[in-house]
Amino acid sequence: MADGYEISPEFPVDENAVRVPYERLKAYMTSVFQAVGLPDADAAGVATAMADGDLLGKDSHGCIRVPLYVRRIKGGAINLTPNIRVEKQTPAMALVNGDNGMGHLVARYSMNLAMDMAAENGIAWIGLQHSNHAGAAAVYASMALERDQIGLIACVGSANHAAPYGGTDILVGTNPIAVAIPAQEEPPVVIDMATTNSSLGKIMVKAMHGEPMPEGWVIDALGEAITDSAKADDGILTHIGGAKGFGLSMVIGFLAGTLNGAAFGSDVIHIGEDPHSVTNTGQFIMAIDVGHFLDAGVFKGNVDRISREMTGSAKLPGVSEIRMPGTNSWRIYQDRQANGIPLTAPLLDNLNKVATELGVEGL
Amino acid sequence: MADGYEISPEFPVDENAVRVPYERLKAYMTSVFQAVGLPDADAAGVATAMADGDLLGKDSHGCIRVPLYVRRIKGGAINLTPNIRVEKQTPAMALVNGDNGMGHLVARYSMNLAMDMAAENGIAWIGLQHSNHAGAAAVYASMALERDQIGLIACVGSANHAAPYGGTDILVGTNPIAVAIPAQEEPPVVIDMATTNSSLGKIMVKAMHGEPMPEGWVIDALGEAITDSAKADDGILTHIGGAKGFGLSMVIGFLAGTLNGAAFGSDVIHIGEDPHSVTNTGQFIMAIDVGHFLDAGVFKGNVDRISREMTGSAKLPGVSEIRMPGTNSWRIYQDRQANGIPLTAPLLDNLNKVATELGVEGL
Repeated sequence: MADGYEISPEFPVDENAVRVPYERLKAYMTSVFQAVGLPDADAAGVATAMADGDLLGKDSHGCIRVPLYVRRIKGGAINLTPNIRVEKQTPAMALVNGDNGMGHLVARYSMNLAMDMAAENGIAWIGLQHSNHAGAAAVYASMALERDQIGLIACVGSANHAAPYGGTDILVGTNPIAVAIPAQEEPPVVIDMATTNSSLGKIMVKAMHGEPMPEGWVIDALGEAITDSAKADDGILTHIGGAKGFGLSMVIGFLAGTLNGAAFGSDVIHIGEDPHSVTNTGQFIMAIDVGHFLDAGVFKGNVDRISREMTGSAKLPGVSEIRMPGTNSWRIYQDRQANGIPLTAPLLDNLNKVATELGVEGL
Repeated sequence: MADGYEISPEFPVDENAVRVPYERLKAYMTSVFQAVGLPDADAAGVATAMADGDLLGKDSHGCIRVPLYVRRIKGGAINLTPNIRVEKQTPAMALVNGDNGMGHLVARYSMNLAMDMAAENGIAWIGLQHSNHAGAAAVYASMALERDQIGLIACVGSANHAAPYGGTDILVGTNPIAVAIPAQEEPPVVIDMATTNSSLGKIMVKAMHGEPMPEGWVIDALGEAITDSAKADDGILTHIGGAKGFGLSMVIGFLAGTLNGAAFGSDVIHIGEDPHSVTNTGQFIMAIDVGHFLDAGVFKGNVDRISREMTGSAKLPGVSEIRMPGTNSWRIYQDRQANGIPLTAPLLDNLNKVATELGVEGL
């Protein structure tokens, strides 16, 4: 570890993982997406958003998704030359039509639009329709930080893996939300969370490494815990706080999906199982320009102060450190920028298989 | 029950509770707030917001708070004749200074402003500073429904009862959020939730009736469960989903408090313990005008369709009914409009004590 920071062992550290430099990983992914037909700039754009996800420690939403995206592009599910455009706009909001392009491109376009609009009027809300899975949500929310803005993105999950509270029909996605709040000297405060107790991506990582899931992440139709990560697809992801998490998920679904004329509920396509169908994925994005409310320096100083209050709290027995949301990710970012992104043997194998198939250089 | 609806027994139904008509309860509260010095229109405004909370089944945030508010008004903590005003405004956002008026008045003023702005530009975000505890959040979010808008309010809790994840210092409020989404024939989809597993209000209701709390709501400084509701104040409220709920609570705190120059963290005043200090309570409010995104009828029809998909799901063993968020509250609303608001003996006693003290007519 760089700088001696402690990183939460949410995932096991694989000492044998190969450290691949960020630029090298990005170049690999750029060549992959060029090979399947994305224009050069778009291939680089998707590769950058994905490598940024890996840099932030979102192992479940970065390069691990290369085989999935390649399968869907080859399956005709993605528009390789989309006309991403604003359908409606006021000084406060816009509706962006992603024209079924890669979600990374639609989300980056929309966050840039939101930040420009927020710089003008303090707040912008962008609804996204005809988008696609965009990888790690924190990547887009965090774009706002360097402009002293607060970034937010929420998404209809790109597959249903959960049920309504008390039910067993698989009608609800993990419907994640990410928010990034700038600080001065402390790490930015960043959440990036599924409204279920686990994202599917985290379970994918566990399954790839043959590890069990904790009880409580997934249940079967009788309400019994499933802990075999390879069998998660047969089960039901549970919501945080039970009915509360289900409620949050419904709100995100209606705002990110239904309000934008995008899919939610039974019309959500399972991107892992269906490599052919267009998804009409919905998201919403916000940017909030701090300076429209109060001096950005005063705000960031107060974020620092409150962050330090929290991390300075007395601890429960057995707890070694209290962290603000996003601090672990921020430490991983420092480490991986300096030392490269660790790719485990099974992941490296998967990525090199794709390279061989496409005739591009592997890792 | 009116219409034979099943209502979730989240709180025990007290068969001996006296049913007081909505208008009668409102008149009682109006006279109470007049007696402690609020101008007539403001007394009626606060009473209406509080009685509306009771009507929606928010028993923990309606008339039960009369003694608390009276104590704080008498203690000099509230400005009885505030100049509630817009400090900053763009087409997308405004910053409202509540001038330390009753939070109900500040929140209603701000939601009305948000709805008017959203009717113009599709979205409005209002930051509130120098506000106060505003009662049931769903009351304000639901104001948007009849205009085919989506309403949202989030608040810095008016006392700290929780700790940072892994910690024991009481630095975090229940920081609730409410969102109301209109439907066509189905009940509106409404969440109104603390980011902790229980609000303090729910615990107050249990304590008033001498009932225990479920394990998991409150822990002590060793991490052990506290279930005696009378001892909740000695404990730490837990967040939904652990670190996730703590993250949501931090985001709400920074956006509702810090961004508005309002209190968050150690500078939050405990309104239950301190009847004298000004709180500088922060909230944020949003209104989203559905018609700026798509036809409101199409949207509401889709909310109906998805709500029916969810409630029509197969059920886990032992579950009698799947409900959308807000449906239980909507049923209680129908029932209480028709049959009055049930006041238990201890609550009625508390309210009549206040009446006697102030020389106004009791219930």
